[in-house]
Amino acid sequence: MVRYNKVLTLVFLLLGVATQVHASDPLASWRDVASKAAVIDLVEAVTQQGGPDYVPQSERIAVFDNDGTLWSEKPVYFQLLFAIDRVKALATEHPEWKTTQPFKAVLDNDMDALADSGEKGLLELVMATHAGMTTEEFSTTVTDWLATARHPRFKRSYTELVYQPMLELLAYLRDNGFKTFIVSGGGIEFMRPWVEAVYGIPPEQVVGSSIKTKFEMRDGMPVLARLPEINFFDDKEGKPVGINQHIGRRPIAAFGNSDGDLQMLQWTAAGEGRRLMLLVHHTDAEREWAYDKDSHVGKLDKALQQARQDNWTVVDMKKDWKVIYPPEKH
Amino acid sequence: MVRYNKVLTLVFLLLGVATQVHASDPLASWRDVASKAAVIDLVEAVTQQGGPDYVPQSERIAVFDNDGTLWSEKPVYFQLLFAIDRVKALATEHPEWKTTQPFKAVLDNDMDALADSGEKGLLELVMATHAGMTTEEFSTTVTDWLATARHPRFKRSYTELVYQPMLELLAYLRDNGFKTFIVSGGGIEFMRPWVEAVYGIPPEQVVGSSIKTKFEMRDGMPVLARLPEINFFDDKEGKPVGINQHIGRRPIAAFGNSDGDLQMLQWTAAGEGRRLMLLVHHTDAEREWAYDKDSHVGKLDKALQQARQDNWTVVDMKKDWKVIYPPEKH
Repeated sequence: MVRYNKVLTLVFLLLGVATQVHASDPLASWRDVASKAAVIDLVEAVTQQGGPDYVPQSERIAVFDNDGTLWSEKPVYFQLLFAIDRVKALATEHPEWKTTQPFKAVLDNDMDALADSGEKGLLELVMATHAGMTTEEFSTTVTDWLATARHPRFKRSYTELVYQPMLELLAYLRDNGFKTFIVSGGGIEFMRPWVEAVYGIPPEQVVGSSIKTKFEMRDGMPVLARLPEINFFDDKEGKPVGINQHIGRRPIAAFGNSDGDLQMLQWTAAGEGRRLMLLVHHTDAEREWAYDKDSHVGKLDKALQQARQDNWTVVDMKKDWKVIYPPEKH
Repeated sequence: MVRYNKVLTLVFLLLGVATQVHASDPLASWRDVASKAAVIDLVEAVTQQGGPDYVPQSERIAVFDNDGTLWSEKPVYFQLLFAIDRVKALATEHPEWKTTQPFKAVLDNDMDALADSGEKGLLELVMATHAGMTTEEFSTTVTDWLATARHPRFKRSYTELVYQPMLELLAYLRDNGFKTFIVSGGGIEFMRPWVEAVYGIPPEQVVGSSIKTKFEMRDGMPVLARLPEINFFDDKEGKPVGINQHIGRRPIAAFGNSDGDLQMLQWTAAGEGRRLMLLVHHTDAEREWAYDKDSHVGKLDKALQQARQDNWTVVDMKKDWKVIYPPEKH
């Protein structure tokens, strides 16, 4: 018996981290509520070898929206705040921006005028700040911005404004053999430089919106030049298209927070066998924000109706989550 | 000591398969030649913890062309043979094809007339056979075709005409922490139904050419409809673009066989640190085919020149490989 215990100890040592995680609550920041139970139910059902809902590891695909699902999206998408900061940084090279919209609005800090420029204006802003450099230069620009930029309300870096309960959920799913993907309306190359360190999601598991790139030789060195032309818009009907394009199989779990995620959840729901469709409902004005159908950013209306109708899981942020963000680093 | 051995035995049992593989030669179908040594050198260099060329596991990305690199591509790309068989199968629903090119050429088995129809004709053929159904219907069609179709020369199923030495190479790289991707000019959805079973490469690690898809509700069920419109052409300059789009980081090893792979190898070569660029040169007319710069399918000219100039690795199929295909199943 002693020898047997020694063997077991060694085996546990070899399996190290995983054992430790399972010893405590892997979803410690979740209160004991229905949404937490729904997550655990799915995981236990699909991992039970020989059980009726068992899913082979290679098919345990989970997809996560990013803005409003994994990190905050207020006062506006953080990528737009990046674009605004880039316009200010590049303004000296573009004297014409002082008199041209939407750039004038940005330089004047006139958010109403910026909003008036509409989708066309925002697209111009994105192209002026996201195209015209190589993929490597853009990646460096994003990394440099994140290192110093601070959120206007919380005065913390943007990558700290991620949801602690969702970080635990990502790790819990991966510990149970899931492959976790981001499927975001945000820019794929805006996310890739930091999502591996922050979420544990590698660049090849990121699906997002993109502009076109072009392979070119510059002084004998190949580069990918970023062009001011939309390649793919990964939102609404685009999400299932992006999932099929990048992943090539249907997820068994999908996590979103807005009407932009509706089709991704419908696509996930329509597969066979056990699945989980979950919406994060922003209900906590004090610790984060409270918004749904009347919000410009992250509007949640139809998806919430369908969630109630089809018994999808809805997280009430205020009630379900013990904490919102990870503790501040000192 | 006895107890220690028992513990070791248990540990080895737990690690099972991996131990067995390492005990014998993981590249058994390769003769002891320079190309084999180049592969082993790379793997040993990048996996040596603390060594000068060490690469973290998450960055060990290897990309493989498919046609002519992992499976044969003669007399023409197998996907074209699929399209031809589909035209014949669908002909009764399309009486107009009897008098319209390129369909008439296919139905008359007139390969010269088909070749005369050029790229435009081939594109029409692809659209008529690859679009107009849902993604799931297309996947089923591919699977059904592969189950019964036989190669005209070898009378074997197409998925048996894969290169045994490359199957070993894929497994060897994965055993050493590499993530293996296909990056093919062929259709992404033509490959995904079978590459996991045949190559051990999951659908989400396939990059390829594609047509557009559209999310639609049909009788309350969401589908992705395949449209007769090119989405992405994953060949030549498209390969680095596709790699960036799907993987988001630069490979450290790239395997190809034709000028269509040149830019992928250039892109791989231009990164920092140890890397491997390898070309499969088809030199074995007896066991497979011998062709390079004068071949319509899999033309190899510029890439071979650059390989010689830059010391990339070139496999001489006839000399380097003990066997070409896996043993026949009986």
